[in-house]
Amino acid sequence: MTETQNLVSLFRETREHTETICKPLEIEDYVVQPIVDVSPPKWHLGHTSWFFEEFILKPHKPNYKLFHKDFAFVFNSYYETVGKRVVRNNRGNLTRPSVAKVYDYRHYVTSELKEFLNTGKITSEIEKTLLIGIHHEKQHQELLLTDIKYILGNNPLLPKYNNSFTENPVQDFEQEWITVSEGIYEIGHNDPEAFCYDNELGRHKVYLHDFEISNKLVTNAEYLDFIKAGGYKDHNLWHAEAWDWVNQNNISQPQYWHNIDGEWYQYTLNGLQELDLNAPVTHISYYEAFAFAQWKGCRLPTEFEWEAAQDQFKWGSRWEWTESAYLPYPGYKKAPGAIGEYNGKFMVNQKVLRGGSVATSPKHTRPTYRNFFQTNLRWQFTGLRLAR
Amino acid sequence: MTETQNLVSLFRETREHTETICKPLEIEDYVVQPIVDVSPPKWHLGHTSWFFEEFILKPHKPNYKLFHKDFAFVFNSYYETVGKRVVRNNRGNLTRPSVAKVYDYRHYVTSELKEFLNTGKITSEIEKTLLIGIHHEKQHQELLLTDIKYILGNNPLLPKYNNSFTENPVQDFEQEWITVSEGIYEIGHNDPEAFCYDNELGRHKVYLHDFEISNKLVTNAEYLDFIKAGGYKDHNLWHAEAWDWVNQNNISQPQYWHNIDGEWYQYTLNGLQELDLNAPVTHISYYEAFAFAQWKGCRLPTEFEWEAAQDQFKWGSRWEWTESAYLPYPGYKKAPGAIGEYNGKFMVNQKVLRGGSVATSPKHTRPTYRNFFQTNLRWQFTGLRLAR
Amino acid sequence: MTETQNLVSLFRETREHTETICKPLEIEDYVVQPIVDVSPPKWHLGHTSWFFEEFILKPHKPNYKLFHKDFAFVFNSYYETVGKRVVRNNRGNLTRPSVAKVYDYRHYVTSELKEFLNTGKITSEIEKTLLIGIHHEKQHQELLLTDIKYILGNNPLLPKYNNSFTENPVQDFEQEWITVSEGIYEIGHNDPEAFCYDNELGRHKVYLHDFEISNKLVTNAEYLDFIKAGGYKDHNLWHAEAWDWVNQNNISQPQYWHNIDGEWYQYTLNGLQELDLNAPVTHISYYEAFAFAQWKGCRLPTEFEWEAAQDQFKWGSRWEWTESAYLPYPGYKKAPGAIGEYNGKFMVNQKVLRGGSVATSPKHTRPTYRNFFQTNLRWQFTGLRLAR
Amino acid sequence: MTETQNLVSLFRETREHTETICKPLEIEDYVVQPIVDVSPPKWHLGHTSWFFEEFILKPHKPNYKLFHKDFAFVFNSYYETVGKRVVRNNRGNLTRPSVAKVYDYRHYVTSELKEFLNTGKITSEIEKTLLIGIHHEKQHQELLLTDIKYILGNNPLLPKYNNSFTENPVQDFEQEWITVSEGIYEIGHNDPEAFCYDNELGRHKVYLHDFEISNKLVTNAEYLDFIKAGGYKDHNLWHAEAWDWVNQNNISQPQYWHNIDGEWYQYTLNGLQELDLNAPVTHISYYEAFAFAQWKGCRLPTEFEWEAAQDQFKWGSRWEWTESAYLPYPGYKKAPGAIGEYNGKFMVNQKVLRGGSVATSPKHTRPTYRNFFQTNLRWQFTGLRLAR
Repeated sequence: MTETQNLVSLFRETREHTETICKPLEIEDYVVQPIVDVSPPKWHLGHTSWFFEEFILKPHKPNYKLFHKDFAFVFNSYYETVGKRVVRNNRGNLTRPSVAKVYDYRHYVTSELKEFLNTGKITSEIEKTLLIGIHHEKQHQELLLTDIKYILGNNPLLPKYNNSFTENPVQDFEQEWITVSEGIYEIGHNDPEAFCYDNELGRHKVYLHDFEISNKLVTNAEYLDFIKAGGYKDHNLWHAEAWDWVNQNNISQPQYWHNIDGEWYQYTLNGLQELDLNAPVTHISYYEAFAFAQWKGCRLPTEFEWEAAQDQFKWGSRWEWTESAYLPYPGYKKAPGAIGEYNGKFMVNQKVLRGGSVATSPKHTRPTYRNFFQTNLRWQFTGLRLAR
Repeated sequence: MTETQNLVSLFRETREHTETICKPLEIEDYVVQPIVDVSPPKWHLGHTSWFFEEFILKPHKPNYKLFHKDFAFVFNSYYETVGKRVVRNNRGNLTRPSVAKVYDYRHYVTSELKEFLNTGKITSEIEKTLLIGIHHEKQHQELLLTDIKYILGNNPLLPKYNNSFTENPVQDFEQEWITVSEGIYEIGHNDPEAFCYDNELGRHKVYLHDFEISNKLVTNAEYLDFIKAGGYKDHNLWHAEAWDWVNQNNISQPQYWHNIDGEWYQYTLNGLQELDLNAPVTHISYYEAFAFAQWKGCRLPTEFEWEAAQDQFKWGSRWEWTESAYLPYPGYKKAPGAIGEYNGKFMVNQKVLRGGSVATSPKHTRPTYRNFFQTNLRWQFTGLRLAR
Repeated sequence: MTETQNLVSLFRETREHTETICKPLEIEDYVVQPIVDVSPPKWHLGHTSWFFEEFILKPHKPNYKLFHKDFAFVFNSYYETVGKRVVRNNRGNLTRPSVAKVYDYRHYVTSELKEFLNTGKITSEIEKTLLIGIHHEKQHQELLLTDIKYILGNNPLLPKYNNSFTENPVQDFEQEWITVSEGIYEIGHNDPEAFCYDNELGRHKVYLHDFEISNKLVTNAEYLDFIKAGGYKDHNLWHAEAWDWVNQNNISQPQYWHNIDGEWYQYTLNGLQELDLNAPVTHISYYEAFAFAQWKGCRLPTEFEWEAAQDQFKWGSRWEWTESAYLPYPGYKKAPGAIGEYNGKFMVNQKVLRGGSVATSPKHTRPTYRNFFQTNLRWQFTGLRLAR
Repeated sequence: MTETQNLVSLFRETREHTETICKPLEIEDYVVQPIVDVSPPKWHLGHTSWFFEEFILKPHKPNYKLFHKDFAFVFNSYYETVGKRVVRNNRGNLTRPSVAKVYDYRHYVTSELKEFLNTGKITSEIEKTLLIGIHHEKQHQELLLTDIKYILGNNPLLPKYNNSFTENPVQDFEQEWITVSEGIYEIGHNDPEAFCYDNELGRHKVYLHDFEISNKLVTNAEYLDFIKAGGYKDHNLWHAEAWDWVNQNNISQPQYWHNIDGEWYQYTLNGLQELDLNAPVTHISYYEAFAFAQWKGCRLPTEFEWEAAQDQFKWGSRWEWTESAYLPYPGYKKAPGAIGEYNGKFMVNQKVLRGGSVATSPKHTRPTYRNFFQTNLRWQFTGLRLAR
């Protein structure tokens, strides 16, 4: 199978998988935006289609006819270069285009793109953009799941998404410390054949000092001990701005935890369940991850430590907060034009998360992958691994 | 036909009419709450049903079984007595119960209530509550139309609601001043047989001085003159807090007006249309009504002047802002319990509007009806009539 | 003594009295603005001087030389007509001009105005403006006292203002109800020789129904009963927006009340003192006055009832909240130009208070005087009298 | 001279220098807090005194008598461990204690501490705390100057501080690029005899790649070119959150720049002056420093690059924004208790600045000194140096 054929089938699979994720939804679930970080599912469906329309079909497919002249306006996200966008916190007020119409749009774009790919006149430049579009959609697949969880999990009726999603993988091994020795380590993406984002590029040397890192993610049981020990009430464990956040938002437990008549429950995509004590804790902010580590007399690993050690432990069920700020690697240059808005513009006041989560799409993550979020955010499947 | 039979048929018609209003909607349109004052249509459907369940079926129907134990929580509005409510500005984030489920709820309540009414064991106390429930639902019918207009009219695609709604009635007569002479006038509801709200009761005497009132509502053409004369830029015409409102919100025209390439359009429930210059101006705040009157060297009538003169002019297409603050009539007592929360608790910092609008349900308004809103609100079909 | 001589001596006394009020202050006390409603004392000193400079000296005194070209900008308040003003909530950040310089400005203006008045070439128009300026300054004298109380009373050290200010007059008589009979009453200012504000003009007829009004202001003892009975926790007693205000601001007692180890104290201009149970309650909002009256099964009087009955009871120690919204009397026209900005622009969403307070300057109030504030404000010496 | 004698004289000099800085102030200037980041000068005077009282006199001096029991409450800053503090944004509303009283407090503390130091019974632990207190006060000396500049520079009268403060040092040399070679560099404080903060400790190895760094700070002339080229209007140059900051705050130039009739001026501590084109640009946020570097096709250095190269260029007139987030060095542990709240709790969402400024006190900075601020702040004498 040629490279292009691979791409075509990856494209096809990806487009289908996005729709599979949305299968369990009611039409109503597609529409709302309860907080600014959570986008309406129909917006994700439209936005991922718009990406292919805007960056491939419109510039490259001969005689391509836009599905609807106003959809670029509705489905653009933060690409300032491309034009005026719907203000991000207004997305949840747009009842039209309807869900049916958005699916029409998706199918139109998918079909037009398949047709275009079949012409065989695809430059490597276009292939590169296509690959970015596919991975962009994979990222939105994860966001779809976490946004759906937020939409359902903050409804007083606590409806379930489905019966089969496994949020809490088994960690049936003892906690141990992995020792890594001082020295120079190479960091960053290293396979010119394989896809990666621009923020992983610039393979470079980093000097690490001796450290130890846990083979196991922190569990709900351990986190519960932190709560019971008064962790949320001891300012010494928190950053100054974290302490303000805790108090202003009355934070006293991870998101989706419920204490009902003295028993602990967690809302999952399968509905409300008893808290699984052996599962890795999740839906915590960086602030909480840091405070927990302080309380344990440990710390969070840097993203470099994590990358240097990652082949010695299991990862992939939680996005792991690191102590590293999200910054450019040496020699980082953002791509020109709208595609270049993808990563670089967020490289301030965010933290790097490494690994992947139960919601991450297949083949989407890798040892050099750099995820990033603001320090107060909790709606992703975030967790933590200790270092010292 | 007996009184109860009348009531039963009024109940049936009212329940049906509410659903007729929602016929043109897509499911998506039922869900959102773009501003705090606009409720999701499915909330209106549920809330008007909850009212009958809470105040009639639950306390009075033997062995009544609640449709769903959590719906009181979801569909209560501001009845503090009845229990914790969903915070008003969070209504638009609730995708469940689904629209279908809400209709099931409606039909269950309608059917249970019909059954109950057929038993014939209805006390006059219950009849009174039923009548309040029916008029409560009629009020929500008007809100449904104005909320739908807001939801569609603030969507960048400007979808229409239907093709047949007449927003702009013809005013094919000349403007004239009606003269009313100084003296004592009786104000307030006067027909013990007919329904009215508690805020209309307490028929009482008011002394009015000589005044004149226009036979005609202010038109779009006149309002356009005000805009062209710089009315929105002359602080002398505005109250101090109105001037802050104008500047903080960049107000320069009525809601739903669009200036496209120098031409004026208005969004209506039938979609975007050229501005109808002869139609009465609408979707203006009290602040704007007052400023326009100042500019004209006139003033707004008080609600008492309006009531004293109302049989000498045509009214009913716009809710007419008056200069009167919404205050209790002499001897006003609010009813005990949750029903008593209906009117009295809003008697501060609001203005009375008189008349009715193109969106008001049939038989819902009358000469003594007192509508009321905060001074900055514009999403109702508000307008103005000059006095001097 | 001629009319002008009277005016001159009234002017002189008024200017002196303002400075007497400020005598006990430290320089630091002149500078701050802890909340938007409280202005820095030095601003009051400057603003009352600016009024005379702007409206008399500048337009009328030959060859008048401005004290400083930027002071109009610094000391204007809300006179939009006169030019750009320092945003109201920024007044407390201006350390310059210094207090000494502001006094220089005052003395310059006082002296220039005396000189001008001595020329004898004062038209009746100027006299009228002068009289407004004097009464404007008297109003600011009251604000000075209440603003100073706020500045000192919200300092954790609770410093006293002086030792001689009597906040709590004796009410050594029994509570009784005064009965007033239904009929037409004349309302509004009635003495063409005496000064009044434009909002009191338009003597007119009002029809009142039978009512009773208390001869005595509500006392601290009675208000304490309301607190102990759970008045601040019973939503039935409050307007909807008042209930939000209570909860958002955690209101549970009048301003300046302190509960220390179970005992009640009140901060007064003489420092912290035991709560005087016989004194009239003060520093309550309209919301609280209304809720108290509801709890008592009574109501607040309207401003018309108050005016009709006022010669039958003692008043003047508390500004008494009425149920009346602050609205124009029939035939009210605001004066042209900046002077006209004085009253009319505030005639929306405020309540009328009648009477006067322990902080009101001598000869400043009268039976027809209409004071007005927003419904949530408490820093004035406000109180209430019941009606039914 | 012994070590303790050195310390005593350093203490004495430092206390005096703080008061020298305040000499040009009017009493009014000591009181206000125009933005949350700027503290009232009298608060700085009290807070630096409180530090010595709280951490040395109270725990160590026999029979020490507190100057005033409530001053700990008034003058604590962010030391949560020590007790309830005055909310930071309320500092500017406290007119008492008066400036005179605060000076009394200072002199009392100074005198008590001198007396205590003269006893000779000073442990090395106390000496360490004393040294921290002295450097703490030196930091506040810089804040005093920048806060005074803010207080005066945002007054519409633009008063000057004095006539002799040199904000704009001469950079009379050509711009050149200094080349630094790839390799391992040692970073962090290295002199066990000399004072440093805990955040500089943990001398450790960092691997740096080849880079070039400018010998010269970016000048006002260069920055003006950026403005003229539309730098503030090109979203491509800005981080996403920076672009929001620019637009929400209408940022179009450095703080204290004024464009008057087409000419550029800068407010300095000596008053308003023509913009000095050769001076290093100052009062810019990290956001602006980054955008300027992007526009130049360069970047900001990391703090490690800066430290590795700093002996090859002149520094000390501007705090230089680096690309480095403020993070703990390997092995960093914060000290136990309140002293430990000093640095570690701010190690999130801030950027490191290196160097020093014209406002930095003598002997207060050094090559390993790590200053830090949030990315939007501009009231310090911040600037930038390019790398590539």
